[in-house]
Amino acid sequence: MANIEKQSQSSFQTALYALSLEREAAAPLHVQLADALRRMILTGIAPPGARVPASRALAAELSISRMTATTALDQLTAEGYLETRQGAGTYVASNLPHISPPSRAPAPGPEPDAPTAPLPFHPAIPDLAAFPHALWARHLERAWRRPEPALLALPDPAGYAALRDAIAAHLSAWRGLNVSAGQIIITSGATQAMALAARALLAPGDKVLMEDPGFAPMKAAMRDADLVPRPHAIDTDGFDIESAARDCPSARAVLVTPSRHYPLGITLPLPRRLALIDWAARNGAFIFEDDYDSEFRYVGQPLPALSALDGSHRTLYIGSFSKLLSPALRLGYLVVPVSLLPRFGPALSHHQGASLVPQPALANFMETGEFAAHLRKMRRLYAKRQKTLLNALAYHLPDHLTATPDPSGMHIVARPGPALTKPDTVVGQQAEQVGLTLRPLSRYFSKHPQQGFVLGYAGFDEPTLEAAVKKLAGILSA
Amino acid sequence: MANIEKQSQSSFQTALYALSLEREAAAPLHVQLADALRRMILTGIAPPGARVPASRALAAELSISRMTATTALDQLTAEGYLETRQGAGTYVASNLPHISPPSRAPAPGPEPDAPTAPLPFHPAIPDLAAFPHALWARHLERAWRRPEPALLALPDPAGYAALRDAIAAHLSAWRGLNVSAGQIIITSGATQAMALAARALLAPGDKVLMEDPGFAPMKAAMRDADLVPRPHAIDTDGFDIESAARDCPSARAVLVTPSRHYPLGITLPLPRRLALIDWAARNGAFIFEDDYDSEFRYVGQPLPALSALDGSHRTLYIGSFSKLLSPALRLGYLVVPVSLLPRFGPALSHHQGASLVPQPALANFMETGEFAAHLRKMRRLYAKRQKTLLNALAYHLPDHLTATPDPSGMHIVARPGPALTKPDTVVGQQAEQVGLTLRPLSRYFSKHPQQGFVLGYAGFDEPTLEAAVKKLAGILSA
Repeated sequence: MANIEKQSQSSFQTALYALSLEREAAAPLHVQLADALRRMILTGIAPPGARVPASRALAAELSISRMTATTALDQLTAEGYLETRQGAGTYVASNLPHISPPSRAPAPGPEPDAPTAPLPFHPAIPDLAAFPHALWARHLERAWRRPEPALLALPDPAGYAALRDAIAAHLSAWRGLNVSAGQIIITSGATQAMALAARALLAPGDKVLMEDPGFAPMKAAMRDADLVPRPHAIDTDGFDIESAARDCPSARAVLVTPSRHYPLGITLPLPRRLALIDWAARNGAFIFEDDYDSEFRYVGQPLPALSALDGSHRTLYIGSFSKLLSPALRLGYLVVPVSLLPRFGPALSHHQGASLVPQPALANFMETGEFAAHLRKMRRLYAKRQKTLLNALAYHLPDHLTATPDPSGMHIVARPGPALTKPDTVVGQQAEQVGLTLRPLSRYFSKHPQQGFVLGYAGFDEPTLEAAVKKLAGILSA
Repeated sequence: MANIEKQSQSSFQTALYALSLEREAAAPLHVQLADALRRMILTGIAPPGARVPASRALAAELSISRMTATTALDQLTAEGYLETRQGAGTYVASNLPHISPPSRAPAPGPEPDAPTAPLPFHPAIPDLAAFPHALWARHLERAWRRPEPALLALPDPAGYAALRDAIAAHLSAWRGLNVSAGQIIITSGATQAMALAARALLAPGDKVLMEDPGFAPMKAAMRDADLVPRPHAIDTDGFDIESAARDCPSARAVLVTPSRHYPLGITLPLPRRLALIDWAARNGAFIFEDDYDSEFRYVGQPLPALSALDGSHRTLYIGSFSKLLSPALRLGYLVVPVSLLPRFGPALSHHQGASLVPQPALANFMETGEFAAHLRKMRRLYAKRQKTLLNALAYHLPDHLTATPDPSGMHIVARPGPALTKPDTVVGQQAEQVGLTLRPLSRYFSKHPQQGFVLGYAGFDEPTLEAAVKKLAGILSA
């Protein structure tokens, strides 16, 4: 063709005749030839309109049968890469103008970032070094080496039955919650549990009360589920449904952290719990109870879950394993009151359940008691770490930060002392520059932000915590 | 109190004095006592208003120190379960009217359903019996026994780097796609990949063209992402963007299955592919390429992915491991053109990635070549099964169903022959009653449904397929 430069036509022919097809390869010769020719077209070596040698010439040059050559050319003609012109031979299709030659080397592009170890005081990170990895690996291996039939069946969107059994037993022992396995739906985390509950029980545009300050990812998940989050300021006793309902009488649900307010750590007193249950019953509304790290209680017994109190069965319990084992597990669950289960049918049919891979291993880990033993061990470890952090803060920053012992959890909240004048967000940025993850408390608020810091201690050993507090002291007293 | 029946007051006292606290237990005696008393209140044994024995009496009856008794009562008073009345002792709080006694036995509730084995002709189910479970279990064990630091770091929302590397290598070898690992985002499946792409690139209310018939879960995922799916009828060559764009000129994206139309199996010819790329470039629109089971090609070489053709870099490739390994893995991925990566920053920060647990194992499984060997083995197996199914249909149902060999995939589509007069949905229901999962083709259409059946064969061995066809013949000729 006139518009094909001679040079590119000839370099195409050179490349084509230089092909070495492998007679010993698994792929038949005609497949190898078609594949090579297709790549030449896609990479621009064979430009649109270029003439393809006749099958006879091709066969001779490549030492293949003419049938092999014809088969390859026919395949590419069928695919649209080549076109034949009556009496004029075969050409690279001329209607391929948009093909830009992709490079044969990997496309220039970013490589994945190196993953970062959590920096002190990242909250919500369990101590993964203390995790019994060998045990866990063995449970994984055992569960999948000769998987039982249920693991090869159609995955139940509600999750693996043995894990649901184990969670029911765990909730009874640790949270005073008597539920059956059939009420438990495994999810890929707490936010997915909340979204699933919302999809089953609420309508787009429904208003959901939540605590201010609160957990931002839950707010984002609500918006994703087309709900309207309505944060309401808590007081010293935590969330007050009566005051919140006065502000937003049309709310259809409330998301609360009654065991331990996030992030302030307040335990919701019984009268406020009862008022929540009463409000939900009177309004036909729902309570989403996010019980995010209640297992780590260092002083006294944890209050039973709000769900255990709720005789009217309008409370949905949300649990997660991300703080008990690892955020990377991506396993959480929702506990649904029996009377509400029928409303979950349609939502469950859409529910993209969690990966089945860790589920049988986690079920075994729980059934053997190893999980409870690990929790108890972590409880002791984290209690010591909290003490270390508090002591270090009192020693190095007595006038800059004020923090009191917290009976539970994986982080404490420190408030500014008289010597601290910089805004918490500024301190947070400075801390980032010296390798600390210091979350400003003000960021957890929707309105009327308070100053302070959320300091996670669970994931860091005592020398690390002490060194981090010294680093922080360097920033604050600069 | 007058309103507390004498009998319940006395049965409470009996229960309380019958308590046996364990001196050897890990929990201190006051914790055990508070816990027991709390349970009595929650279960209704200690009704609101009931009088609690004085700490002196309690200590004497239970053989504990008076300090132990006082500490327990103080804790429950602080929690709101008990209240003290000036000079009149301690009572179960009277403002607990909504507590209905939860039963101590597990709540009556449904047990999880027994999981069901896939029935013939369930489509999209790989042969899990042929899966190399022992190898896979060993990879899981090895990856987690002494996990490398990256597995214990903060999880990268884009997924585990080694898996992204392995997928890039797989795409280059199998799909002619040269991309870098940094362009790959691991997701919990194909629908999540589509939703992530939509969140990054589109706005709520944007119209997305899709093929009619098509894959219903993708349509549902679009609606969840606040997009407006616009199915457009395909013709014998598959999806025609020019005709679709005339019908819906404001479409901002298109979701297509160019390698193998779902469910009809049509391979989109090159001119139509180029028209798609041209349309996207001219309109600043996007192409979502769902490449759902292109690895199983029995005849000829697969066409390279549409993304490999797209010089203008507006095609996002969606892959999944659900048909290659198991739907229970819940692993898929999205390949993003380099120039679009910056737009994924905010969407990735919200992205709840897939479980990390299977990711290092899958990466090793791919790097060792075992994954490719498994795919090749499955390709041979599935090719034979397709042949068996076609032969059985031709033998047992020559006048009722017409099906032709399909060069790829895990299912075939059978069309009604002259002897079949019942609607496909009726036959589907009858088939369900005899233990077959026979998907009516009409159900895949939004408009102008065609009659037929989608028959999956990949997950069933040859005797099972033959028996299933005989069963189906029993229904159709009845």
